[in-house]
Amino acid sequence: MQRLVFIGAGNVATHLAKAFYKKGYSIVQVFSKTKSSAKTLADEVKSSYTTNYNDLIDDGDIYIYCVTDEVLPELISQKTLSNGVHIHTAGSVKMDVFDKNRQNFGVLYPLQTFSKNKEIDFSKVPLFIEANNDFSAQKIRELASVLSKKVFSISSENRQKIHLSAVFACNFTNHLFSIAQNLLGEIPFEVLLPLIEETVEKVKTISPKQAQTGPAKRRDNNVIEKHLKALSDKENWQEIYKKLTEDIQRERS
Amino acid sequence: MQRLVFIGAGNVATHLAKAFYKKGYSIVQVFSKTKSSAKTLADEVKSSYTTNYNDLIDDGDIYIYCVTDEVLPELISQKTLSNGVHIHTAGSVKMDVFDKNRQNFGVLYPLQTFSKNKEIDFSKVPLFIEANNDFSAQKIRELASVLSKKVFSISSENRQKIHLSAVFACNFTNHLFSIAQNLLGEIPFEVLLPLIEETVEKVKTISPKQAQTGPAKRRDNNVIEKHLKALSDKENWQEIYKKLTEDIQRERS
Repeated sequence: MQRLVFIGAGNVATHLAKAFYKKGYSIVQVFSKTKSSAKTLADEVKSSYTTNYNDLIDDGDIYIYCVTDEVLPELISQKTLSNGVHIHTAGSVKMDVFDKNRQNFGVLYPLQTFSKNKEIDFSKVPLFIEANNDFSAQKIRELASVLSKKVFSISSENRQKIHLSAVFACNFTNHLFSIAQNLLGEIPFEVLLPLIEETVEKVKTISPKQAQTGPAKRRDNNVIEKHLKALSDKENWQEIYKKLTEDIQRERS
Repeated sequence: MQRLVFIGAGNVATHLAKAFYKKGYSIVQVFSKTKSSAKTLADEVKSSYTTNYNDLIDDGDIYIYCVTDEVLPELISQKTLSNGVHIHTAGSVKMDVFDKNRQNFGVLYPLQTFSKNKEIDFSKVPLFIEANNDFSAQKIRELASVLSKKVFSISSENRQKIHLSAVFACNFTNHLFSIAQNLLGEIPFEVLLPLIEETVEKVKTISPKQAQTGPAKRRDNNVIEKHLKALSDKENWQEIYKKLTEDIQRERS
């Protein structure tokens, strides 16, 4: 079985490492600058860990980088590793970040939102892969296919498009839920769940553009004015309300 | 069985009228200024219709107003009706809009998004009701309970809070899906569905604030800059991206 090394111990690393561990892979090393994170993850997947990047082993089969886009190029350039296949998991970093000092490399980008205390069923998660040569391609597809039935080869450019879309469809959507919860005050957030579920149900059968409803779409200025007034002491949210309302109306005209 | 009159023939009127018709209610009249809408809905629920508001019958049992917030007060003041219980369905209109020329009245606000070609299962839709006296309260609760198990009495003020929250959690969320679809270009929107479903799954068990992930939350400025650059020819979306990113970061600090 392949010996995996994880660089990073955040949400993505944790979910991936645990998923591969469950499938029988050996996680042989976890690196994180933060000792508590490195140790926590290493303990969960019965791996060793290091907080010193220079102690990274050089005989792993697959190195999986789950760090921020800022840190990734620094880490790669800091140490040349000729063995193994090197894979990053970022949505918006080009594959060629590995060009200079790795031989076999690629990308495995899981299109999912990973929170610490929420298990993920990887079998339904789309995994977008890319590789620098046939050897890497085979290794990465093999690895990805262990976790998910939805493995797609895709270019760096299209991966970046998907990542940007995902920020709107997931991260920003979640933040709108957060604003909604705050606006509800004492009223429990649960009252909104049937509405939120239907909002998602709809876009499974009709396009979001067709599915659009609400005061902005109806151009119900009376409601819009009331809402802006209700948001008068929440400047940021009033701005967000205005921008999204304008944009819904712009789309239609 | 109660004889219902519908004022309005848009999405809300259509979904409600059809739901009550299926439950055995007689829809006796549909009013809409737009003849085609009035006729279409009237045909579906075997009702008569009128495009002349002055022809509204005065012996209905329950009058259900499903019109924009702008039109509602005008319509009410245009004709005094002493009989029947008068109910509006708007999120942000106070109950006392009926004060001057109706005797028994209230509100039945369904917290749901209604699109023309998408059936709704009302049994799970929260219905928020309000009434001006015990008689109206009994009639409105009776009517609402026929459709849904989730009937809640609520003040006009709290109803407005829920409506405003719903605009963020549903209408604006749907628009983010629309932006995401557009950004995907040729890539099918379906790739985002598992992510969107998980985004919703998460807020069933943890708060949206806890569930937040993404470049804004991680303060991954590298990604944020790439995304803003990718949006450089889409000024509105770039603005929306900035505002939501700032707001996610503001919330955390």
